[in-house]
Amino acid sequence: MSLYAVIMAGGVGSRFWPRSRRSHPKQFLDVFGDASLIQNTFARLQPLVEPENVLVVTNADYVGKTQAHLPAVPESNHLGEPVARNTAPCTALAAAKLIAEDPEATMIVLPADHLIGDVSRFQEVLQAAVDAAQTETASGGHPLVTIGIRPTHPETGYGYIQFDADGDTDGIADDLGMTPTAHRVLTFAEKPDRATAERFLDAGDFLWNSGMFIWRADAVLAAFERYLPKVHRLFSPLAEAFGTEREEAAIADAYERSPKISIDYGILEQADDVLVVPGAFGWSDVGDWRAVHELAAKDAAGNRAEGNVILQDTARSFARSADGRLLVLVGVTDASVVDTGDAVLVCDREQAQKVKDVVDFLSVHGMDEYV
Amino acid sequence: MSLYAVIMAGGVGSRFWPRSRRSHPKQFLDVFGDASLIQNTFARLQPLVEPENVLVVTNADYVGKTQAHLPAVPESNHLGEPVARNTAPCTALAAAKLIAEDPEATMIVLPADHLIGDVSRFQEVLQAAVDAAQTETASGGHPLVTIGIRPTHPETGYGYIQFDADGDTDGIADDLGMTPTAHRVLTFAEKPDRATAERFLDAGDFLWNSGMFIWRADAVLAAFERYLPKVHRLFSPLAEAFGTEREEAAIADAYERSPKISIDYGILEQADDVLVVPGAFGWSDVGDWRAVHELAAKDAAGNRAEGNVILQDTARSFARSADGRLLVLVGVTDASVVDTGDAVLVCDREQAQKVKDVVDFLSVHGMDEYV
Repeated sequence: MSLYAVIMAGGVGSRFWPRSRRSHPKQFLDVFGDASLIQNTFARLQPLVEPENVLVVTNADYVGKTQAHLPAVPESNHLGEPVARNTAPCTALAAAKLIAEDPEATMIVLPADHLIGDVSRFQEVLQAAVDAAQTETASGGHPLVTIGIRPTHPETGYGYIQFDADGDTDGIADDLGMTPTAHRVLTFAEKPDRATAERFLDAGDFLWNSGMFIWRADAVLAAFERYLPKVHRLFSPLAEAFGTEREEAAIADAYERSPKISIDYGILEQADDVLVVPGAFGWSDVGDWRAVHELAAKDAAGNRAEGNVILQDTARSFARSADGRLLVLVGVTDASVVDTGDAVLVCDREQAQKVKDVVDFLSVHGMDEYV
Repeated sequence: MSLYAVIMAGGVGSRFWPRSRRSHPKQFLDVFGDASLIQNTFARLQPLVEPENVLVVTNADYVGKTQAHLPAVPESNHLGEPVARNTAPCTALAAAKLIAEDPEATMIVLPADHLIGDVSRFQEVLQAAVDAAQTETASGGHPLVTIGIRPTHPETGYGYIQFDADGDTDGIADDLGMTPTAHRVLTFAEKPDRATAERFLDAGDFLWNSGMFIWRADAVLAAFERYLPKVHRLFSPLAEAFGTEREEAAIADAYERSPKISIDYGILEQADDVLVVPGAFGWSDVGDWRAVHELAAKDAAGNRAEGNVILQDTARSFARSADGRLLVLVGVTDASVVDTGDAVLVCDREQAQKVKDVVDFLSVHGMDEYV
């Protein structure tokens, strides 16, 4: 009944352009401090999960990179996806590998590129989620558990989870210092508009969907069998292929034939026994440059400068220079300016999401050297 | 009675940073089109002034550059100033050189770094100013003549000249198609505040001070003798030094001992016989990046992009990339973004004047590689 972690590291994080590139995605960037996001993700799993019990699932092109960033994780634990198929196939792959090694495995599934401020509180919440995932349900199975973040503002960029608060939406266990507890999930809500997000915030029984999941491998495979039978049929036979000559080809074949579907949509929104442990530990998915600016330490004018930067009459802005090049902002407000040597982005803080469109544009127009 | 031109090319134009540098000032930049500003200044003097009748007065460090940009001007006509002493000493130097060659010389003095849209109209206005400068006054001397620009908006960045309109401030000769005529100058006004500038614009008898002057060398030297006797005493003896071994040392000595003073303040505001020829020919001193943006051809959103630039949801902005580096603006309004390889400037359009402060900051802080 060992504990495993699956770090999902397949994305590019294109809203982090020009720092993120196809050849150097967001999870490998040192956005905060000296370590990369994936290194921080790995580090805060200690001491809950042994390094040899960590799996990394990433794009096949990035396996060399994840191995270099996480040398403590055994080489064969870095699994490469030949094509991107969203999070459900990735989870099925990891579950198949873990169940082959440990029929009672409990797995923590989490994205490689999030930020967590209060690591000890995170670990307490995670431990509560693990305990909940290992507790037998009335029907003799085990629940699927997720971590929900107590919202601090009416964010429209996240999905929400409504949970059964039993009438108590104020003093529940997400508050620091209290013991975190699992609650029954009522609904998953898509990214809301502003008015809906405000309603969610006021209601008190809505949490941000963190994309972090905890379950026994056999429980999630049973859920796959019921709700995504095709994915189950493709991936569960892989259990016998790991560590054999067939491994790579078998994985490639399963991915090739798999639908593209998220674990949230494909499994969690369908399943009955879904629990959520509310947490408040300074979490962000660090989705774009605006988020980086918000999370970084700033000066009195609300500016964050990294590298060879001069700011004059500038406020609420983020500026990062590269290669020692001098970056000067004069009279600028609410901007993100990011220089990477071959490219410079100047972006309104509130329009940081649109950076993804620029990357799409570059890709469509064959400007691959910048993508 | 030949016609000469004196191109003043001593400044750095630091509000054009990061393109302008101490080692590569504004007048040598190709701000508009393929030719440098000084080359355009020289070209629009043709056919009024023979190339061998053009003098260039510049910083001693830039003589090699002015010679390279204006190879048609004889080498010995490029005069280097050992120290900057503003425009009065520069004018006295040029007048002393010209009078030694031609006692009846008429000289056009003009800055190297201005923009003029309608060159033929400019030449008509210039010819009228030359004619006025060569007409004897009642007292037997010759007037000092300047060119005044009919203001198009209440600009606070220029000095103004009030002229004697004889009650006719609407249909005077600055309008295109009419014969330009010289008018008596009443007053010179410093850069005004906004309200004053609006009053000047409404009054109809105020013009922008263009910094372009036309006079006989003997007339301006007589004015120096009366209003700036010290400068006269230092510079008029140079007439005998040009072309001799003493030239460089004599010039250095005169500059060393000269006060710093402008021709406007030192002579024109004091003298009696000062005339102005009003002109309207699309003039700008192209003082900063805002002016460049205003004068450049723009797209429907008011943007001007030069080089490898992508604009998304961007308006009223100027963006220039360097060395093929990609520059991307997302959701930006009213900005000037200028990349020069070693430095990137992001500046609010309305705060372009402050770029000079940045250059001062760089200089004070020993960041000479960027100055």
